[in-house]
Amino acid sequence: MSKAGFDEGVVIASEERPEKLQSDKAPGIATTGSGWTKVSCPCCVSEWVEPLVLVKLGENVRPETKRWLIKLIGTPQKDGGAALLAHPGEDATGDIIMVSAPRCTLLQATEELGLCKTFKNGEMETFSYDNRENFRHSDNMEMFLTVAEKQYIVKYELEGLRARRDVRIPGLADKYTLQHRDNIWHKMISAGVVVDTFPLHNKAKLKELSKSWYSGNQLSQPLDSVNAYFGSTVGFYFSFLDFYTWSLLPPAILGLFITYFSSEVQKEAVEAVAGSQAEIHEEDAGLGVSGHMIQAVFSMLWSTVFMELWKRRSASNSYRWGTLDLAERFAEPRPGFHGDLGMNSVTGRMEPLFPEWQRDLRMALVSVPVVGLFLGMVLLGMLCFYWAENQVMWIHEEWDSVVSQTLLYAPSVLHIVYTNVLATGYKTVAQSLTEFENHREESAFQNHLTAKVLVFTFFNYFAVLFHIAFVKQDVPLLRKRLASLLIVTQLVNQVTEVVIPFLVDRFVSAPHRSESEDDPEEDKFRNQITLPVFPGLFAEYIELLVQFGYLSLFSCVYPLTAVLLLINNVTEIRSDAYKICKLFRKPFSAPVANMGVWQIAFEILSFVAVVSNCWLLTLSPQLQRMQHEGQMSSSDIMLMAILAEHVIIIVKVTVAALIPDEPDWIKKKKARMQYTSMQALRQKNLPSDES
Amino acid sequence: MSKAGFDEGVVIASEERPEKLQSDKAPGIATTGSGWTKVSCPCCVSEWVEPLVLVKLGENVRPETKRWLIKLIGTPQKDGGAALLAHPGEDATGDIIMVSAPRCTLLQATEELGLCKTFKNGEMETFSYDNRENFRHSDNMEMFLTVAEKQYIVKYELEGLRARRDVRIPGLADKYTLQHRDNIWHKMISAGVVVDTFPLHNKAKLKELSKSWYSGNQLSQPLDSVNAYFGSTVGFYFSFLDFYTWSLLPPAILGLFITYFSSEVQKEAVEAVAGSQAEIHEEDAGLGVSGHMIQAVFSMLWSTVFMELWKRRSASNSYRWGTLDLAERFAEPRPGFHGDLGMNSVTGRMEPLFPEWQRDLRMALVSVPVVGLFLGMVLLGMLCFYWAENQVMWIHEEWDSVVSQTLLYAPSVLHIVYTNVLATGYKTVAQSLTEFENHREESAFQNHLTAKVLVFTFFNYFAVLFHIAFVKQDVPLLRKRLASLLIVTQLVNQVTEVVIPFLVDRFVSAPHRSESEDDPEEDKFRNQITLPVFPGLFAEYIELLVQFGYLSLFSCVYPLTAVLLLINNVTEIRSDAYKICKLFRKPFSAPVANMGVWQIAFEILSFVAVVSNCWLLTLSPQLQRMQHEGQMSSSDIMLMAILAEHVIIIVKVTVAALIPDEPDWIKKKKARMQYTSMQALRQKNLPSDES
Repeated sequence: MSKAGFDEGVVIASEERPEKLQSDKAPGIATTGSGWTKVSCPCCVSEWVEPLVLVKLGENVRPETKRWLIKLIGTPQKDGGAALLAHPGEDATGDIIMVSAPRCTLLQATEELGLCKTFKNGEMETFSYDNRENFRHSDNMEMFLTVAEKQYIVKYELEGLRARRDVRIPGLADKYTLQHRDNIWHKMISAGVVVDTFPLHNKAKLKELSKSWYSGNQLSQPLDSVNAYFGSTVGFYFSFLDFYTWSLLPPAILGLFITYFSSEVQKEAVEAVAGSQAEIHEEDAGLGVSGHMIQAVFSMLWSTVFMELWKRRSASNSYRWGTLDLAERFAEPRPGFHGDLGMNSVTGRMEPLFPEWQRDLRMALVSVPVVGLFLGMVLLGMLCFYWAENQVMWIHEEWDSVVSQTLLYAPSVLHIVYTNVLATGYKTVAQSLTEFENHREESAFQNHLTAKVLVFTFFNYFAVLFHIAFVKQDVPLLRKRLASLLIVTQLVNQVTEVVIPFLVDRFVSAPHRSESEDDPEEDKFRNQITLPVFPGLFAEYIELLVQFGYLSLFSCVYPLTAVLLLINNVTEIRSDAYKICKLFRKPFSAPVANMGVWQIAFEILSFVAVVSNCWLLTLSPQLQRMQHEGQMSSSDIMLMAILAEHVIIIVKVTVAALIPDEPDWIKKKKARMQYTSMQALRQKNLPSDES
Repeated sequence: MSKAGFDEGVVIASEERPEKLQSDKAPGIATTGSGWTKVSCPCCVSEWVEPLVLVKLGENVRPETKRWLIKLIGTPQKDGGAALLAHPGEDATGDIIMVSAPRCTLLQATEELGLCKTFKNGEMETFSYDNRENFRHSDNMEMFLTVAEKQYIVKYELEGLRARRDVRIPGLADKYTLQHRDNIWHKMISAGVVVDTFPLHNKAKLKELSKSWYSGNQLSQPLDSVNAYFGSTVGFYFSFLDFYTWSLLPPAILGLFITYFSSEVQKEAVEAVAGSQAEIHEEDAGLGVSGHMIQAVFSMLWSTVFMELWKRRSASNSYRWGTLDLAERFAEPRPGFHGDLGMNSVTGRMEPLFPEWQRDLRMALVSVPVVGLFLGMVLLGMLCFYWAENQVMWIHEEWDSVVSQTLLYAPSVLHIVYTNVLATGYKTVAQSLTEFENHREESAFQNHLTAKVLVFTFFNYFAVLFHIAFVKQDVPLLRKRLASLLIVTQLVNQVTEVVIPFLVDRFVSAPHRSESEDDPEEDKFRNQITLPVFPGLFAEYIELLVQFGYLSLFSCVYPLTAVLLLINNVTEIRSDAYKICKLFRKPFSAPVANMGVWQIAFEILSFVAVVSNCWLLTLSPQLQRMQHEGQMSSSDIMLMAILAEHVIIIVKVTVAALIPDEPDWIKKKKARMQYTSMQALRQKNLPSDES
């Protein structure tokens, strides 16, 4: 039935497709012969093909171009294709292609990516294609690979397509002729043939997942299912969110305790929230300062313990999710990577090469100065804002009128506009800079991009608070700002992340969805095109980082921070889960072994926190009063703070060194892996070199 | 040519030995013509055997015990022996055994230790026994392994001997009966059978080495030859000494420059050296302080750059010396390791196991408190010394007499005695503590032992200087102390390391040596027993660390430090080389990949230096005067110092992160190794699991 050649297959499909689909009533569609390209190897023939990825074509794509693309997707890799399965959709001339993957391609890509899978003895081992019989479920792709992995593999194969020789693409202008080793998928995108490529939701699995994730009252998240459905990038975010939220319990309890027992702090908090300007220096009780200090020291040590325990959790996640031994370094470079063609000295393959020192040079001479410039512009903006605010205050005092009254808002408005313009501009610049740095691996690219945006965003958020703390040295103002930021942030979060999504879903999306029951299968997939693209986890992570910043940098100022964050995060877990399941297209997710650059950001913050907290303690009202009363000189206070800072940093470094980053069993596991491959290497050389 | 050389060597050897060897008619020991035990495999039969290690037996060892031991050494490993070659010496009943190693044992041990050797393509690859034909010179042990490696392998095999079953040793009391898995060599030592085991000097090679090392006026050391002859432990020490010495050039030049241009500093230095008590605060010139500051900032940054560059040098040494991929973790545990017999989950072998957490517990609950106690006792001793000194001063002032005059020396004398007693006691305690921690690997044992002694010794050296700097805050006194310490240390060093060794060699050792020309071969080896045991590199390293401490911790106080150290170290290189070549028995040296714990010690010191220098700058005379004159408050000065400290630490951390620890080509090399073993693993599983 599907024995015909590729070209023929496409033609047949275009003629038979409509009727076939009408009669197809099963929720999972597509059997062999229902329009999927033929698989090249007999072992991969399967009765049922699960559509994994949808490729949206441009409106004006000619049928011959689509046929060419479908054929390319189905061609075996040895002939320069992607060895995937393609389906032209309801109509051979329509603007979508559905892509799936046969067993052999999936297995080979699993080896190439270095994923670990369950060995016959029940342990996770790096998958080896030659040895596939010894891995559990390697004959059943449903059980062997997660949906997210299969979808990522499809993307990986599509984006890895490279022209073997110069080729003219049918139906396209000559300027899009492929040169040798051109990345075909990139060319297709730039030619407007491919508009979008995204993984498809699996309604049944999604429903099951959402039920165990956010619909009930459960406290724990089904993290393994999240990883299976959305991939490890998303899995790590939710695992971290979970771990972080429960780690807030100790500081939250301590905060409540301190607030309860120290009426003074309580009052301050209330006053700060209410925006009262009352001077509170005079009313300090003894307990207040010691409460502050306990809170500060506790939170500084807590943050290190938290991060170290997270690393262990992260390592065991990575083991369970099979990403302990990723082989990205040895795989093909990412599609955007360019350089002179040469032999990779590690793998011995021909591929573009780009010297490390040139990348370092570009980072040092271009990226760093540009990022510095933008940070300087943030600072400049802030200083202008303060200057302008003073000016308008002065003007308002001089000429008290309606005009001057409205003028009072001008600096704030201008500053907000300036900041937003800067942030938008910066994002584009950061993207281009990271492209320019020309990283070989996708993860390196992502980490450098994230790091750039992160530094800027963080600076943007905290510049004002640092200015108040270190330059103005105004603790009451800092406390007030912090309290209002925390509460405003939470309210805004609740609205944007829970209320609006719910309303959108209820009144905008739901009507659309109700139709879909009787629609042909393709239309259900088509519906997913209308969903907005998932914006990525950057915003989610930065929110956590900023929270963590409020908590650790200025913890001694406002003890209830952790309580507020805990409440916020419990709802955050649900709203984030709801968002990713319902409101966006499913994102692709590369297998990753950890949070990447975010982990470093949290760690750096926890050290900066020591400096900031010790500084804030020198500004504590009681010490200030002691100084006024002559009990301690200002240099004595400073000395004490320096001593405290050094001791706490030494303790933190020691604690971080003493808590191993990986649980003992993972260390053993890794040593075992290394030992086996050492053994294999010793044995291997013999036949291959002597024969 | 080389074949002929060997044959000739045999002839000479047999000419020298005949009569003595005739008397060797021990039953059961098959001997070749020259008295060596027979090798078990035909490929290893060689005409000429190089004696590598000498085993000195106890005086009362019975001939049957010696015969048993010789037989054991010669027995193949599969029968529980060491698969080495043994020679009973001039006389079968004499008290020495000479040991050598046949080719197969050497090659197998090379694989077991994970040494890298030159592959046929000229690169260093981890040696594989199965693949030995592809390694250069693998048929010629003279070229393939260095002398130090061969000798270490003999030691490794001897100390790895374990009883296969319960065995009574002939000629020994029943209490020395071997139990299953007992370490035989340890039992032999505790039974007094083996008194000493040490590697033999090779006079010809030693002569050649010393000629290119310290006899001429050469500036560079023949480090590869040093590594080949003495092993990588010694190689790394001399490589570091070399690198460190030349790295002193920039701070030395700067120091000279500052001293020359700042007459004030020059004068201070002279005064400090001369011991003048003149108050110099009043005479400060402007340049003085800025000179101090330049020197301090430069030396703080210099130390980081120096350490980072050293790490790169160290990595390339490790590549050249074949220790990049040591497999100590996967080898048998060190002989002193004990625990319940069980299966090692990594290698799958039966061996003693000892849980990690139990070791951690022992370290936390026993080692750390005990070390802390000793440090406390050092501190206590110092405080008592200061107190006693004040007391005797006061007594002397009250009762000025001869008795009180002599009493003035009492505190110093008592303190020196106390310190020495403490140090001696501590060394024993540190050894027992590290034994008690029960480390699996020899390198871990050595590192923990070194770390313990290092902390104590360093504390001992620097407690007084820190006391002067931080508690007494007396910069002139610190400067005086430092200058005198530097000069005294150098003089003492020159005397103990150059003059005394020379005299000993000239007038004590030389007469002995002149006789040896006509002696039989065995007597020449026997002579080496009379040499003292090499005391190890601890004293050499700690000397460098203390130097580095003077230089970096208090660099701003005395700018000429680097100059003095440079002069000292240029001679130090020669005297150390002379010492190890001529005055001691040759030491065993395990293959190591780096300096181990010393590297960490130098790095920590370079960070402590920032704190100490910034603190000393606040005590600088000019700032103190500005404070007196009211130009700056003490808290302003403090703030400046904190700011400087934080900035410098951030710069140091950044520089350390930016300079890669390994040169690019070594990173590639390692990636290549990993890639090959990954490939091997993927291919290997197939036949071994499917067949």
